[in-house]
Amino acid sequence: MQIAVLGTGTVGRTLAVALSRRGHAVVIGTRNVADTLARTDTDAMGNPPFAQWQAEHGDVALVSFADAGSDAEAVVNATAGSGSLAALTAVGADRLAGKVLVDVANPLDFSQGMPPVLSVANTDSLAEQLQRAFPGARVVKTLNTVTAQVMVDPSRVPGEHSMFMAGDDVAAKSVVTGLLGDLGWPADAVIDLGGLRSARGLEMYLPLWLSLWGALGTADFNIAVTRT
Amino acid sequence: MQIAVLGTGTVGRTLAVALSRRGHAVVIGTRNVADTLARTDTDAMGNPPFAQWQAEHGDVALVSFADAGSDAEAVVNATAGSGSLAALTAVGADRLAGKVLVDVANPLDFSQGMPPVLSVANTDSLAEQLQRAFPGARVVKTLNTVTAQVMVDPSRVPGEHSMFMAGDDVAAKSVVTGLLGDLGWPADAVIDLGGLRSARGLEMYLPLWLSLWGALGTADFNIAVTRT
Repeated sequence: MQIAVLGTGTVGRTLAVALSRRGHAVVIGTRNVADTLARTDTDAMGNPPFAQWQAEHGDVALVSFADAGSDAEAVVNATAGSGSLAALTAVGADRLAGKVLVDVANPLDFSQGMPPVLSVANTDSLAEQLQRAFPGARVVKTLNTVTAQVMVDPSRVPGEHSMFMAGDDVAAKSVVTGLLGDLGWPADAVIDLGGLRSARGLEMYLPLWLSLWGALGTADFNIAVTRT
Repeated sequence: MQIAVLGTGTVGRTLAVALSRRGHAVVIGTRNVADTLARTDTDAMGNPPFAQWQAEHGDVALVSFADAGSDAEAVVNATAGSGSLAALTAVGADRLAGKVLVDVANPLDFSQGMPPVLSVANTDSLAEQLQRAFPGARVVKTLNTVTAQVMVDPSRVPGEHSMFMAGDDVAAKSVVTGLLGDLGWPADAVIDLGGLRSARGLEMYLPLWLSLWGALGTADFNIAVTRT
């Protein structure tokens, strides 16, 4: 499958490599290719400059947001939540129309210090904002409830644990279930929460995730839904 | 232990009976005892009138909020989130001072229809509001992430699963860990998320809980935190 991953940070890089290894044709989209390649500093998360990373990952091309959108069958939004709307606007509504848009982003607002709060919550969600802005896209919220390394390697967390998805397009959720399977998530670990409104709960889980991260001292955790 | 449970609904009744059975001296507090006993209709959740319920549970006396607070060593807030501040005001700041206040309530707002949204979220929480209103109380948020029957019988959900707590008073959290143990929660199932600010994440988990309730078709579920 032709997949465009938007975002050059930890999540974008991690998902791009993993999907490429599973046989997908993957590009990473960025606002300005020359600027991204010209950077020589590590980012806020300690990642090496993109050019250095790409020298080790030649199978993943870096292209503009617009070029990323042109050929893609599915688009993965792995940008920072604060930049997601701008990034997708740069991809363009026409190029997003009819495509599966996997929204992995969290609308975290770091402007008030740590821990971050959400920039949208309770009566709306980032995923719903994106769906409203790009009504032709087939938005599915998923993967935002685990750290990047767990997204692509669920076996880092022992035992059975859960991955959620929400979206209004049933066929798009079926495509996403397949992609999650490629990443190592068994189908019975994936819980379909129904329509995209449930993305609110997935994004509002982030404060609990952040508290757990602090309490456990590791990001290699997840939750398993247990029931009778 | 002398425990006052505030609230005559499902959660209050369920917790009062369970704590009484474990040997605690339990009363239920309500705004107006005569009014509560005079009701003859089932409530919105299908519970029988309180007078009928109490005839079967003579070990749990119904008293006014103020009387409930006078003798209690610990107070359990099992009122609806929308009425919690008023209920605790009726108990009185003086009577709450120095006492463990177990806040089980969720700030659900049903005024916009189903599913409810939260009346406070993201940059504040009900638990923090209560702590600010009653600075002498030792507020601990817990139990709000599971349905009433699971609160008092974790074995309804198979396997190991997690209970959270958050609060600024370490000694109060130790008391609450003991009470959770009385209800059947093993100490290693209880995750201390640190200060009361983490109550935000516990309350903001509710939208995900509501989505899971819909997706699973049962309220007899919980989440287990899994980690390496």
